[in-house]
Amino acid sequence: MLVVMKQGATTQEIDAVAAQIQSMGFTPHVIPGALRTAIGITGNRGPEGREILAMMPGVDDVIRVTSPYKLVSRETHPEPTIVTAGGVTIGGGGFTLCGGPCSVENEKMILETAHKLAALGVRLLRGGAYKPRTSPYAFQGLGEEGLRYLARARAETGMGIVTEVMDVESVGRVEEVADILQVGARNMQNYPLLRRLSLCRKPVLLKRGLAATLEEWLMAAEYVMSGNNRQVILCERGVRTFADHTRNTLDLSIVPVVKKLSHLPVVVDPSHGTGKSEFVPAMSLAGLAVGADGLLVEVHPDPPHALSDGAQSLNFEQFAALCKALRPVAAALGVEVR
Amino acid sequence: MLVVMKQGATTQEIDAVAAQIQSMGFTPHVIPGALRTAIGITGNRGPEGREILAMMPGVDDVIRVTSPYKLVSRETHPEPTIVTAGGVTIGGGGFTLCGGPCSVENEKMILETAHKLAALGVRLLRGGAYKPRTSPYAFQGLGEEGLRYLARARAETGMGIVTEVMDVESVGRVEEVADILQVGARNMQNYPLLRRLSLCRKPVLLKRGLAATLEEWLMAAEYVMSGNNRQVILCERGVRTFADHTRNTLDLSIVPVVKKLSHLPVVVDPSHGTGKSEFVPAMSLAGLAVGADGLLVEVHPDPPHALSDGAQSLNFEQFAALCKALRPVAAALGVEVR
Amino acid sequence: MLVVMKQGATTQEIDAVAAQIQSMGFTPHVIPGALRTAIGITGNRGPEGREILAMMPGVDDVIRVTSPYKLVSRETHPEPTIVTAGGVTIGGGGFTLCGGPCSVENEKMILETAHKLAALGVRLLRGGAYKPRTSPYAFQGLGEEGLRYLARARAETGMGIVTEVMDVESVGRVEEVADILQVGARNMQNYPLLRRLSLCRKPVLLKRGLAATLEEWLMAAEYVMSGNNRQVILCERGVRTFADHTRNTLDLSIVPVVKKLSHLPVVVDPSHGTGKSEFVPAMSLAGLAVGADGLLVEVHPDPPHALSDGAQSLNFEQFAALCKALRPVAAALGVEVR
Amino acid sequence: MLVVMKQGATTQEIDAVAAQIQSMGFTPHVIPGALRTAIGITGNRGPEGREILAMMPGVDDVIRVTSPYKLVSRETHPEPTIVTAGGVTIGGGGFTLCGGPCSVENEKMILETAHKLAALGVRLLRGGAYKPRTSPYAFQGLGEEGLRYLARARAETGMGIVTEVMDVESVGRVEEVADILQVGARNMQNYPLLRRLSLCRKPVLLKRGLAATLEEWLMAAEYVMSGNNRQVILCERGVRTFADHTRNTLDLSIVPVVKKLSHLPVVVDPSHGTGKSEFVPAMSLAGLAVGADGLLVEVHPDPPHALSDGAQSLNFEQFAALCKALRPVAAALGVEVR
Repeated sequence: MLVVMKQGATTQEIDAVAAQIQSMGFTPHVIPGALRTAIGITGNRGPEGREILAMMPGVDDVIRVTSPYKLVSRETHPEPTIVTAGGVTIGGGGFTLCGGPCSVENEKMILETAHKLAALGVRLLRGGAYKPRTSPYAFQGLGEEGLRYLARARAETGMGIVTEVMDVESVGRVEEVADILQVGARNMQNYPLLRRLSLCRKPVLLKRGLAATLEEWLMAAEYVMSGNNRQVILCERGVRTFADHTRNTLDLSIVPVVKKLSHLPVVVDPSHGTGKSEFVPAMSLAGLAVGADGLLVEVHPDPPHALSDGAQSLNFEQFAALCKALRPVAAALGVEVR
Repeated sequence: MLVVMKQGATTQEIDAVAAQIQSMGFTPHVIPGALRTAIGITGNRGPEGREILAMMPGVDDVIRVTSPYKLVSRETHPEPTIVTAGGVTIGGGGFTLCGGPCSVENEKMILETAHKLAALGVRLLRGGAYKPRTSPYAFQGLGEEGLRYLARARAETGMGIVTEVMDVESVGRVEEVADILQVGARNMQNYPLLRRLSLCRKPVLLKRGLAATLEEWLMAAEYVMSGNNRQVILCERGVRTFADHTRNTLDLSIVPVVKKLSHLPVVVDPSHGTGKSEFVPAMSLAGLAVGADGLLVEVHPDPPHALSDGAQSLNFEQFAALCKALRPVAAALGVEVR
Repeated sequence: MLVVMKQGATTQEIDAVAAQIQSMGFTPHVIPGALRTAIGITGNRGPEGREILAMMPGVDDVIRVTSPYKLVSRETHPEPTIVTAGGVTIGGGGFTLCGGPCSVENEKMILETAHKLAALGVRLLRGGAYKPRTSPYAFQGLGEEGLRYLARARAETGMGIVTEVMDVESVGRVEEVADILQVGARNMQNYPLLRRLSLCRKPVLLKRGLAATLEEWLMAAEYVMSGNNRQVILCERGVRTFADHTRNTLDLSIVPVVKKLSHLPVVVDPSHGTGKSEFVPAMSLAGLAVGADGLLVEVHPDPPHALSDGAQSLNFEQFAALCKALRPVAAALGVEVR
Repeated sequence: MLVVMKQGATTQEIDAVAAQIQSMGFTPHVIPGALRTAIGITGNRGPEGREILAMMPGVDDVIRVTSPYKLVSRETHPEPTIVTAGGVTIGGGGFTLCGGPCSVENEKMILETAHKLAALGVRLLRGGAYKPRTSPYAFQGLGEEGLRYLARARAETGMGIVTEVMDVESVGRVEEVADILQVGARNMQNYPLLRRLSLCRKPVLLKRGLAATLEEWLMAAEYVMSGNNRQVILCERGVRTFADHTRNTLDLSIVPVVKKLSHLPVVVDPSHGTGKSEFVPAMSLAGLAVGADGLLVEVHPDPPHALSDGAQSLNFEQFAALCKALRPVAAALGVEVR
């Protein structure tokens, strides 16, 4: 940390700050300047004491210098994390596809979707049994019944199952069926849930919150990793801005920044990112080109009659066309579509 | 709902939309226009079918006309809801103060705070036993021990206790001690938690999420009300924007809009709203003047040594000065400070 | 400035940065730390060279320590700036009212408005002769004809005129009539215009841009002050966020922060801030309570038939009621309404 | 337009609205509903009268149905606009590269840059002679001297020149040298400038404002087209959000939406979009994949010593590597890099 004193801070004020730093067990380094004095701090391992210093007389600002995350950081773990699920890897090169409906509506539709996607070579099936809905009056998912249908889809196709878990209570049930447990954007900072997931044996797909900074997102991943669970996949799904031409603003620029700062894989969800199926193919191609490790895309047998998120779901034909469009671009990028 | 057809939509397309509306059990009203045709829909009670129509050939947009919330709406409940806790009312006129530390750090500090605030006439004490923290390595609250200290503070002072509940699991424990259960901004759309709280006998203080629209906030309140719990207090605590001069952007303009649309009381949290104690008094006065039903403000015996949120906490002297500043303004507004 | 080296930066990299700082004429102060090394810089007067350093091998970040503005800063000018126009002061205590229509639509309406406002004790009249409109097909203002009507309103009532200037070309014409030249939000960073205004003898009212940070706003004021014009009034009129319950999000929290950092007066525009006349009174009271130096409010003889911004304009009766509501609150705050 | 009446609006209120619509020369279509009545309006060509209706008793909302832009709309002009400059086309297929420094710093550097880019097959050279800078104390560009150097670069290489124009006054001078006149993000709603440019014979590259919605951006283009100038190129360069990992948030999702709504070409500026050269290649590839018509990228002979925007500029080697990376991806997409 660095303490920046106000212009005109007195010697007494500067000395008091240095003494405070020493009393906290750290070492102060006073740097007198033409306009102001700054005081560097060494020996500390985190931002503890920052607020104390910020409130001392004569102090203008206290600037944090080191990042607050450890386990997710590429500095401490230079090799990329590679997650395996459903017989396919995510991370470390390659572009892994995951498709399926927003919610499991009935057995027939999820099995039909699974078989269609498997035939296209997709090895991860997404589908919600528990659904967070803005309205208490909207369809909330089939719950355990939905999990049973997902289990059958896995049994029949061998696909890995990606499904959302919404609370601590249902983690055990979801973990039995899921190959990857998904945390939705609204739960990105649901810390009791993240702590519970840190004890799971299954990978966690952590969606970025609607208003989450990169640091907050990585800190949420740090929660999951702070237990025994080192298998975290990050998922950019759009953030909330003033822009109204899409449902959210898909922030593709976070992909290369995540790659720089963290070893965790990061995938892109263009369905929630745009909210409109007609823009999903273009943003999927962009997600591939920007260097994401994969794609989470909503696919439904009959989007106009979907119980949720129909407007942003591709039908089978559209999804097959997207797969076809991705392959040559991936080849040109030297990336394998999985 | 209103379906707007594209310029150049064919008669067949228009007829197909009208037929679809009828097959859904509603009545279509075709409105031919100079440039485009619109089709009004009557007989429906919600937005069901909107997506189906939006995807039909020739359709440009489907516009929702009625609001999705019912129980929170002033249309269905014109009288203001008045919540009583700790012997004081919130809502229906009056400006109710609630103060206390971010987190209960030990027994001494919470008792000292309670007595100081009670002596100033404040009848609601806030303090967190369970704390959502961005870092897994930061102080997470005292948990049940903190609840016991809060219970003692209530026993000694008669103040009502406002404390946060973070998950379904701890609702029972928190409910035993709290007079008002607080839902934090990060949990505003934690639907399992909201559903559980809808079964509580205690009022719920629902903070606005960092990126929540007014409609989403009211829908979250609708979740709580959709069970048996009709006692909801809304709390504006700042939203996330590009602005960096305060920790969040306190959106005071939402207060009169909430008042117009809903019967629920709405209070303001200038501590989280600004993140800096020096700006709390000005924003508190503004919160009073804008018509809020009360204030949630962080007060700590020794802010520079607080374990969390010290920079935004007032000390006792500053809080007493704020109370003193509020009273004449309240009097001028014809509002009683409680 | 402070250079933060990466964890694992080599001695050679550190030495190279120190040498670069010296070659720039400044003094480096190396602060070795447990995890990283930081290098303080003294002797520099601004952020020059920041980018060079940021790109050197081993450098993680370069942190700016001092603010980039000088003339607007309270550090260099502790006394509040007081602007006088139309026989009334803005700044230095007091709450100055300015009212009038969005645009001057004809002679009759602006004269009628001026007389009504003058009768209420208001001494500043706003009204646009040149109007920035989103659509090229919308009413763009009366131009010079509008200026003539404003001049007559001044002649008849003695009120000071606040009117917008949109380009360098028309500054001379506007300056002849205006007592205060207004720069609209869209022109906050129109630097040729700001430079031209820095040569004017009349005060400038500088609206905050829709996406302007506090620093950018103060830097825009610095442009105006960097010539001979020291009379700048800042005006918060709402910023653009995701929130959709008001036209913009009126950021009242910027008022106390401006007061802390700058000596310039700051007023509030609740009409653009909310976009809806029904919420203007509440936000006006909040603007008074938060410590603003005045109010810019749209008043129109017949809002439903206004050529622009009718939805956010008060009629005379509503404005008179607002004035009446402001006075007791101002008295309670110890502030004089002017 | 559609008028939505409040629940419980009286027959008199409904009749009054219908009468008002008729008095405005339009035709009302009353649609009685189960909960509310709606009134469709036909015969109008724009949003005139919207505010009048919105303020009538019993009216809940007035919904605009048709878009306010005409000339930029694909509905009225289905064929893509193709702009030609410097012997290369922009729009209508193909991916056109434009590179060069943020500002023309001296003759040597701009000539060197031009020759290097030309050797890589790039046919458009960007470089600012007039620079909008946040600080009045920062380098503001060489002005006319810079224009002369650009003219020489064109003479020597045959490249087309893209350079910024900041005010009405300098349009004539810039037009003599430029092949494409650039309007910066801060000037996107500088209407006097847009009107002046609508009279130019040269194409205009219109950057999206930092807080501009798609509609506002298209309306700004409509200003330029509303004179005789039909050659407009749109440029997405990032918007302002809460995200802090990049300088701006590059909103690539606007590209396919622009393509749907408008016939104008749209290019992407990943340099301003990210603010950091290390992320420019990834976002350039994403811009290509998402369907943009080209790229505007900052290239400088020696970025660490650039007078402006060094941190986001590529050096020649990095730019050559980017060109090389783009070609196979473009080929896979069936797009020619120009």
